[in-house]
Amino acid sequence: MDAARERQQQLTKPPGSLGELEALAVQFAGWQGRSDPRIDSVHIRIFAGDHGVVAEGVSAFPQAVTVQMIQNFAAGGAAIAVLARHCGADFSVVNLGTATPGPEMAQVVNVQLAPGTENFCRAPAMSEALLRSALDCGAKYTPTSSDLFIGGEMGIGNTSAAAALTSALLDLPVDATVGRGTGVDDHGLSLKRDAVQRALDLHLPLIGSAFDTLRRLGGLEIAALTGAYIASAQRGIPMLVDGYICTAAALLACRLNPGVRAWMLFAHASAEPGHQYLLRALDATPLLDFGMRLGEGSGAAVAVPLLQSACRLHNEMATFAEAGVSTGEPH
Amino acid sequence: MDAARERQQQLTKPPGSLGELEALAVQFAGWQGRSDPRIDSVHIRIFAGDHGVVAEGVSAFPQAVTVQMIQNFAAGGAAIAVLARHCGADFSVVNLGTATPGPEMAQVVNVQLAPGTENFCRAPAMSEALLRSALDCGAKYTPTSSDLFIGGEMGIGNTSAAAALTSALLDLPVDATVGRGTGVDDHGLSLKRDAVQRALDLHLPLIGSAFDTLRRLGGLEIAALTGAYIASAQRGIPMLVDGYICTAAALLACRLNPGVRAWMLFAHASAEPGHQYLLRALDATPLLDFGMRLGEGSGAAVAVPLLQSACRLHNEMATFAEAGVSTGEPH
Repeated sequence: MDAARERQQQLTKPPGSLGELEALAVQFAGWQGRSDPRIDSVHIRIFAGDHGVVAEGVSAFPQAVTVQMIQNFAAGGAAIAVLARHCGADFSVVNLGTATPGPEMAQVVNVQLAPGTENFCRAPAMSEALLRSALDCGAKYTPTSSDLFIGGEMGIGNTSAAAALTSALLDLPVDATVGRGTGVDDHGLSLKRDAVQRALDLHLPLIGSAFDTLRRLGGLEIAALTGAYIASAQRGIPMLVDGYICTAAALLACRLNPGVRAWMLFAHASAEPGHQYLLRALDATPLLDFGMRLGEGSGAAVAVPLLQSACRLHNEMATFAEAGVSTGEPH
Repeated sequence: MDAARERQQQLTKPPGSLGELEALAVQFAGWQGRSDPRIDSVHIRIFAGDHGVVAEGVSAFPQAVTVQMIQNFAAGGAAIAVLARHCGADFSVVNLGTATPGPEMAQVVNVQLAPGTENFCRAPAMSEALLRSALDCGAKYTPTSSDLFIGGEMGIGNTSAAAALTSALLDLPVDATVGRGTGVDDHGLSLKRDAVQRALDLHLPLIGSAFDTLRRLGGLEIAALTGAYIASAQRGIPMLVDGYICTAAALLACRLNPGVRAWMLFAHASAEPGHQYLLRALDATPLLDFGMRLGEGSGAAVAVPLLQSACRLHNEMATFAEAGVSTGEPH
């Protein structure tokens, strides 16, 4: 990082004038252990799973959409698939467990640990064994080497899980953490708030750890993301965290292993109201604020070219000496 | 735009969940008159010129840097050159007039209307004839056809000109509009404030129009940018406006021809303090906020992939019908 900082001072621009792009290049230099960092290989893994809480009417979309979207990811028609294609990413989908079986397609790994989670209004979302399997799965399908890891998620009902996790982890009322997700109307929003409140009433008195929070209120794909983030940090791979659901998993990963935080960048500020609290708890400043709320890792994929520009400027700009440009003089 | 909005509603995502990216795709559809807008051809023109006001000690860099940087643009070592290369842009530099002659290089057009402007602390920056030539030059070197136009600028001393223009156009005190530019120290900053204040004292009582403001307080490259923005709008080419100096030219272009505004996007919020006032006056929300203050069009070039992602998502995502994904139902 020192070598990269030194180089930034020599490039043909006023010192500091590339703002955050300079800090990003220096950060990647530290992560990659090289003064000329690059982001050539990008790995995107979408973790999918179904949620028992959809029985409470918390989503605007039917549960079948989880499997339909897995198919759409693999067929290249989903937002994240379009973005992954254009940034040349290594892209695949890991289906942790859907209510009906996932499609047999290239780029889809059907792990199918369970037919979704239990309805957390009535029972813990997962058993301890199931949670451990989902965490392990996240680690297993995280790349062993990459310039950048992006986790994404799909699971009808998972903004309800993210809201329950955020309320539990940060001691926030459901009004602060429950948003419209995929777009529930006012009636759906009140059902969703009520379901998350009932889940908190049931589980909060029994929760003793971040692990237990994830087990009782999380989802299979959120657990896999949590495992993936921890594995990514352990393998020295920087990660770009997407929106609300991913950031809930990011906070869980950091609670389970605080060292993970140092490997994370945050792509964007989601339009989901609870996201800001997670970002604040992680002391994170997102790169973009576009009012996105799609999930899938889409906000992170949109931000990849910004990181690539930071590294390219760092590596390819001429120094004052190379270009024969006079440096600034103090008056 | 209606056709594009209709398509956005059919894509496999909750309506509105791509946030600003949806609005951008719809906007480009309107600009290009096609429901599948694309940003394949990007034109970047850097306008350069010297400023007489540097005699007042307003810059941390010597005036020779204007010509040295023109050379660095053409040689590919400057930030904007690196970014232009990676976005496949058509890139060239138009030297309106430097204190010493510009380099004879491919990608550099040496128009050399004058050896820079007059020192506006003592006289109008330009004669009316010179201003007209600079405006015409901007129009002349603007592409006749493009998916996106980016203007950039180079001219040691030009944040002083931008500050004087911003104060004059928006009736703001110099404390609000004069920043550290390329990085003057406290002494340089006080010299810069003093110079801009003297220029305002001299010219404000005599200014009768936006044209006259530009003539008395502007620069050759700022005038060329103003002409380029007007020409770009007249040719139906959307433009992505960079930072402080470019946005001053953008406001001048809109004052001269209010129809220009409808063709403009704004790339980023500059770290120069005066920029926010220009953005507000133009009712503009910038795409990025990275604390950049390099100029050259660099902030705009960094934002190009975001616009391309917006269009690609719009064109390449599957619809609910194509992908066999169920749509959301109102409860």
